Amino acid sequence: MTRYQRLAGLLAERIEQGLYQSGERLPSVRILSTEHGVSISTVQQAYHLLEERQLIAPQPRSGYFVTPRKAEPPVPALTRPAQRPVEITQWDAVLELLNARQEKDILQLGSGMPDLNQPTLKPLWKIMSRLGQQQDVRMLNYDNIYGVPELREQIARLAIDGGCHLTPDDIVITTGCHEALSVSIRAICQPGDIVAVESPTFHGTMQSLRGFGIKAIEIPTDSGTGISLEALELALEQWPIKAVVVVPNCNNPLGFIMPESRKRALLALAQRFDVAIVEDDVYGELAYEYPRPVTIKSFDDDGRVLLCSSFSKTVAPGLRVGWVVPGRYLDRVLHMKYIVTGSTATQTQMAAAEFVRQGHYPAHLRRMRQYYQRNLEIFTHWVRHFFPCGICVTRPQGGFLMWIELPEAFDAVKLNKALQEAKLQIAVGSLFSASGKYRNCLRLSYAQPFTERTGKALEILGAAVERAMERCGLSVHAGPSHEQEGRVSERE
Amino acid sequence: MTRYQRLAGLLAERIEQGLYQSGERLPSVRILSTEHGVSISTVQQAYHLLEERQLIAPQPRSGYFVTPRKAEPPVPALTRPAQRPVEITQWDAVLELLNARQEKDILQLGSGMPDLNQPTLKPLWKIMSRLGQQQDVRMLNYDNIYGVPELREQIARLAIDGGCHLTPDDIVITTGCHEALSVSIRAICQPGDIVAVESPTFHGTMQSLRGFGIKAIEIPTDSGTGISLEALELALEQWPIKAVVVVPNCNNPLGFIMPESRKRALLALAQRFDVAIVEDDVYGELAYEYPRPVTIKSFDDDGRVLLCSSFSKTVAPGLRVGWVVPGRYLDRVLHMKYIVTGSTATQTQMAAAEFVRQGHYPAHLRRMRQYYQRNLEIFTHWVRHFFPCGICVTRPQGGFLMWIELPEAFDAVKLNKALQEAKLQIAVGSLFSASGKYRNCLRLSYAQPFTERTGKALEILGAAVERAMERCGLSVHAGPSHEQEGRVSERE
Repeated sequence: MTRYQRLAGLLAERIEQGLYQSGERLPSVRILSTEHGVSISTVQQAYHLLEERQLIAPQPRSGYFVTPRKAEPPVPALTRPAQRPVEITQWDAVLELLNARQEKDILQLGSGMPDLNQPTLKPLWKIMSRLGQQQDVRMLNYDNIYGVPELREQIARLAIDGGCHLTPDDIVITTGCHEALSVSIRAICQPGDIVAVESPTFHGTMQSLRGFGIKAIEIPTDSGTGISLEALELALEQWPIKAVVVVPNCNNPLGFIMPESRKRALLALAQRFDVAIVEDDVYGELAYEYPRPVTIKSFDDDGRVLLCSSFSKTVAPGLRVGWVVPGRYLDRVLHMKYIVTGSTATQTQMAAAEFVRQGHYPAHLRRMRQYYQRNLEIFTHWVRHFFPCGICVTRPQGGFLMWIELPEAFDAVKLNKALQEAKLQIAVGSLFSASGKYRNCLRLSYAQPFTERTGKALEILGAAVERAMERCGLSVHAGPSHEQEGRVSERE
Repeated sequence: MTRYQRLAGLLAERIEQGLYQSGERLPSVRILSTEHGVSISTVQQAYHLLEERQLIAPQPRSGYFVTPRKAEPPVPALTRPAQRPVEITQWDAVLELLNARQEKDILQLGSGMPDLNQPTLKPLWKIMSRLGQQQDVRMLNYDNIYGVPELREQIARLAIDGGCHLTPDDIVITTGCHEALSVSIRAICQPGDIVAVESPTFHGTMQSLRGFGIKAIEIPTDSGTGISLEALELALEQWPIKAVVVVPNCNNPLGFIMPESRKRALLALAQRFDVAIVEDDVYGELAYEYPRPVTIKSFDDDGRVLLCSSFSKTVAPGLRVGWVVPGRYLDRVLHMKYIVTGSTATQTQMAAAEFVRQGHYPAHLRRMRQYYQRNLEIFTHWVRHFFPCGICVTRPQGGFLMWIELPEAFDAVKLNKALQEAKLQIAVGSLFSASGKYRNCLRLSYAQPFTERTGKALEILGAAVERAMERCGLSVHAGPSHEQEGRVSERE
């Protein structure tokens, strides 16, 4: 531990213990330097560290102050979706979200884009440039329907971290995780079938179901432990469900990692009712815990789990390189892949394979995990700071997405419209429900670097939420939504 | 015209007029040089040109001989598929064809791969390498669901050649023409619907129908003028057909260009019965006629034509850059694109856009048209030379695919198996029928440079066909299949 880290630790302890109180001005750099016998720059570094951790905040020309703290808002309660299969709606709202991607001047707090400006991505550019120079004609030609062999080798190697022992032939490359999910669902289901999903669930999955004429039954889901196995069991008993689609690791949008025991129990349930599991692991490598959590696929002994993933969240979505490990559904998955795209772009596959083979992937992943985790801390702090009471906030265990639940009467669709003027965009909760539930929720991304603009955006967003809540006649000083459950959040 | 071209023209004329007869030895280079007062090298160049045109052939150590010519085999008659909607089969056979792509030592005469070793593709490599150096972060990010704007601009520009006046917003980029077709079909049809197709028709389209649970009704098709409008009209009267899928320009596999009047008539028919037209134009730019033939889309005044294409046959299939002009079905097409792949790889789109923008595309296209047309001449010559009588051969008007029809009793599936030993592969005709018709047909590609190996392959193939026909008790000296139609082909 360096000198400035020791000093920062000491100061943090004092703040925790209330020696320096919330909102109080901290001693000047000069005074601390004398007091602790360290250089001015050491004190400055310590203050900088505490600032990063959001324990203190500078005020221009007056020094550092202890950040005022509110109580941690509670996490959302177990969701309570309609317990019957429904036709999926919400496409218009999804399209709106997608179209906003292109408007450069809009700050997109709702999108699932990773940060693409990290130095650990630099080797990828080099690789792409070199591939152009090498003029390997394979790059221009149709790819194998399974995908480029060297890429499948690398993915088999990476899968070990998630507990899977695969050969390259177990893997089918797809045009992003999107295609992986889409071909998996279509490989298992016919139009009119029913699929069980977590609630809330990724809108892309839901729209795939919709596109294929499949109904969704939304299963109550806990923001800490995932899909309710009890509710799922009931649904499996009651309805002819064909498959369960889950995002058990670093769930989108709730951020949980399903405990290993529950993963095993989910698989046992699937075996008992003989249904397939589509496991979306696209954020799994971004878990903040190390080693990364295992996949349900790692326990799969009868090939009923279709593991879907991609490099879109970990490396770059523009590559459109994903994959599926389809188990017993290999033939059907190949057919579905053939009919939707034929094959995946060859060059981007070769680039991804080379990025992993040359060893750049683990370093990049390590950096991204730390970066997103730190962003989460900053983000959580400012959400707590700017948002009114009466909200619930998830505690993501990986990835870069946060889910905020506002009181029932709140309308995030209206909020999003109101934010247009301020050039802000959030992802409205109703996108994540088959039937347009969760209009009172929003998904925020903390993937992008936290800048002054982000801070300002959260301030505007918080104020807008507060105004909207007041208009709805909702108290913004005590949490109304989960009061009855004893999970009140209050300002200190 | 240069000196050697003039000389070659003169000699060609003499051969045509029978002054030099079939199989006759031509004068030596020295004699011709003296006779015409030109240099030895001029005569050699002229002979080389005639050799390329297959009018003469060298024999080691004995000079040049007039190539023996057989009568042109007839073209296939109007096809006669079953006139009712059928479920599509043949996936296993398609998969076999796809898997063979990867076996480097197999000479693939059946595949739809273009030639990728032409010098006019060089700028594409440079562009790809430069894109890597530029490090434009857009390359790594999710693309707009419509596709990269600058690419759509270029495609709108190119579409003018096919008679379409589009804006970039009329175009949706897809992951190859495969996705364009797939999303178009799915945008129009529901499972259980019926779609009319040319017979034979591209197996990818057929498998897409199969994957979506759509039935196909195969319409009789003429190898010179395309789908029979009369038969189509009958089918439209009799069945609740939702859409017609056609490849009117440089048809795959028959090679015809539908006359403009028939294109208009097809559209009128579609309007009368209120069905959509999915127009696959993927080979349209490779027409040997100049300017290129117009698309049906160019006459479309009520948005019912979905024009599908890509750079896969003209530039490079590995890019996976295609597009659809979906007319009134835009919203549905966007939804379908979103659910199957979300977006297309950004980098390859940017590379394609730059290739066109910098002006390399017309030069490349010009070269490829000439190259394929010359290859067709060589190929036709050797097919005529090595194949027995009793076959029908198409006269492709563009692209690089030839369709050979053998007598009914012939089994191309067995032939393909027998060819494995010789490391040869053809595309079996039954792939191109929903119900496995055309087992007596084969599709050959003449995209790759004609080498000694190709010649040898055609010799083996011709001999195998001859043996198989003899085993079936079919005459190989007079065409049995279309005798009754007065279209006998005989050796001279």
